[in-house]
Amino acid sequence: MLVECVPNFSEGRDAARVAALEAAISSVTGSHVLHRTSDADHNRSVITFAGEAEAVLESAVRATARAAEIIDLNAHRGVHPRLGALDVLPFVPLGDTTLDECVALAHRAGERIWRELHIPVYFYQAAARQPHRTLLEKVRHGQFEGLRELALTDETKRPDLGGPALHPTAGAVIVGARPILIAYNINLATADLSIAKAIARAIRTSNGGLPCVKALGLPLESRRQVQVSMNLTDFNITPPHVVFAEVSRLAAAAGVAVAESELIGLMPRKAVEMGFADALKFPEFSSNSVIENCLANYAKPNSIS
Amino acid sequence: MLVECVPNFSEGRDAARVAALEAAISSVTGSHVLHRTSDADHNRSVITFAGEAEAVLESAVRATARAAEIIDLNAHRGVHPRLGALDVLPFVPLGDTTLDECVALAHRAGERIWRELHIPVYFYQAAARQPHRTLLEKVRHGQFEGLRELALTDETKRPDLGGPALHPTAGAVIVGARPILIAYNINLATADLSIAKAIARAIRTSNGGLPCVKALGLPLESRRQVQVSMNLTDFNITPPHVVFAEVSRLAAAAGVAVAESELIGLMPRKAVEMGFADALKFPEFSSNSVIENCLANYAKPNSIS
Repeated sequence: MLVECVPNFSEGRDAARVAALEAAISSVTGSHVLHRTSDADHNRSVITFAGEAEAVLESAVRATARAAEIIDLNAHRGVHPRLGALDVLPFVPLGDTTLDECVALAHRAGERIWRELHIPVYFYQAAARQPHRTLLEKVRHGQFEGLRELALTDETKRPDLGGPALHPTAGAVIVGARPILIAYNINLATADLSIAKAIARAIRTSNGGLPCVKALGLPLESRRQVQVSMNLTDFNITPPHVVFAEVSRLAAAAGVAVAESELIGLMPRKAVEMGFADALKFPEFSSNSVIENCLANYAKPNSIS
Repeated sequence: MLVECVPNFSEGRDAARVAALEAAISSVTGSHVLHRTSDADHNRSVITFAGEAEAVLESAVRATARAAEIIDLNAHRGVHPRLGALDVLPFVPLGDTTLDECVALAHRAGERIWRELHIPVYFYQAAARQPHRTLLEKVRHGQFEGLRELALTDETKRPDLGGPALHPTAGAVIVGARPILIAYNINLATADLSIAKAIARAIRTSNGGLPCVKALGLPLESRRQVQVSMNLTDFNITPPHVVFAEVSRLAAAAGVAVAESELIGLMPRKAVEMGFADALKFPEFSSNSVIENCLANYAKPNSIS
């Protein structure tokens, strides 16, 4: 039962701390760190790891403990909203694993985080236990500073496990299960934040834009650029190359160039192949056009050791 | 030691015969047919297969034997030049295999073909034993009908193994080793052959165009289009997306649209990833941005069974 886990940590500036978080994950045999991204403006790191379910669960709990030891949200500043030291903890099915299996894993992780670490837990998306907690951004609305007050007085804001008081320095962990998500950003060659915000508004699903797209306009002060920061929640419906074309079109209409694309974490191979086929007008191109993919059909099943 | 082998057979019309050739390849445990193309006008089939070197070698010899049994070149007609029943037999390194290892394999294949099947052998490209035999088209110049005469009298036309007489019905096999080649075509939305020919002339290496590109302009009468038909002999130097951009530019300058791209056989994953990264302005994108590629690093070594 192969599972990916993509914890988001509220630390993106101190390399030693990020290394400590990664070490906590890797300390479990069978958990493999696949990717790591840190952003100083966001002051946030995303570590992608994968392995068999039990190893991934153990790593997730250890990573939460380590984050609570070294991150104090009272001192945290960054442009990205956050509620916890380990802020978001999604479990993602890979291979033949089902989303339901990841929901069960998320619930076990949440129980351990509250019972063993005394950090309150909210469950979101497929693991949500309350219908108004499906959307991550709604659960996190108010962030650490707002929710630690509201959770005390507003029943609908209480954690699913623990609380009503949040942890004084580690906040709460938002634990969930979801299909593969592509965290994809497009940076614009301008410092004008209003342009990124307008493009984000135009493309996001909630405003009637592209389907399965969440988008924010953010400043990247260290680069003197702005960013359209996106989550593509179903790349089969809206893949990165479609978003790139639309953002490029809107940016050009505003007289601004696209500087570059940026990926936070990893993306599935199929999204790459879809983008390639589109760019080269390749109607017959498929996964079976690629030597390595054809060969893999004959390889022994991949087992993660 | 993973090796690809891409035999070209002088039979592209009789499906039962092509199936028999494929069956000869697949009769070896560990040799896997990845792709097959037959063309009736060329009267020629290309079967791509791969596996561990020893299995591939055995399949190559069995395929040569089967081709000699069922193909008589005296009765073969087609627009593509050919010298043998199994006409060309290139060995291609995959994974960590080196070109030198494929040269050694090509030489072993050639020795067995002459010794066991009594079909003369020419070695070409990286496996050439004579400097004037590097280019396949030069080795094959004169074809079956011309070379069976010339080989008897002209020392420079003799096979490297066997001869001077060619096999009376199977001709000779041109055995070689080469890096991965991408057979890539771009179809133009015009029936004007002069435009495809002019673009082919402009981009081919031999005319000072793009490096590592062979190109021809061809008519596609059934589609009322023309084609720039290419071999990309080193996709790390000139990948498909660079060719696509240049052909698109030249076509646009001639007032013609690109209809579509077309692949003959297979292409390596890296060429797909390079094209995707370019299309989306993704400077940081690499193989390690793809979930499946990262996971494969932790999988038990792929063994082709």
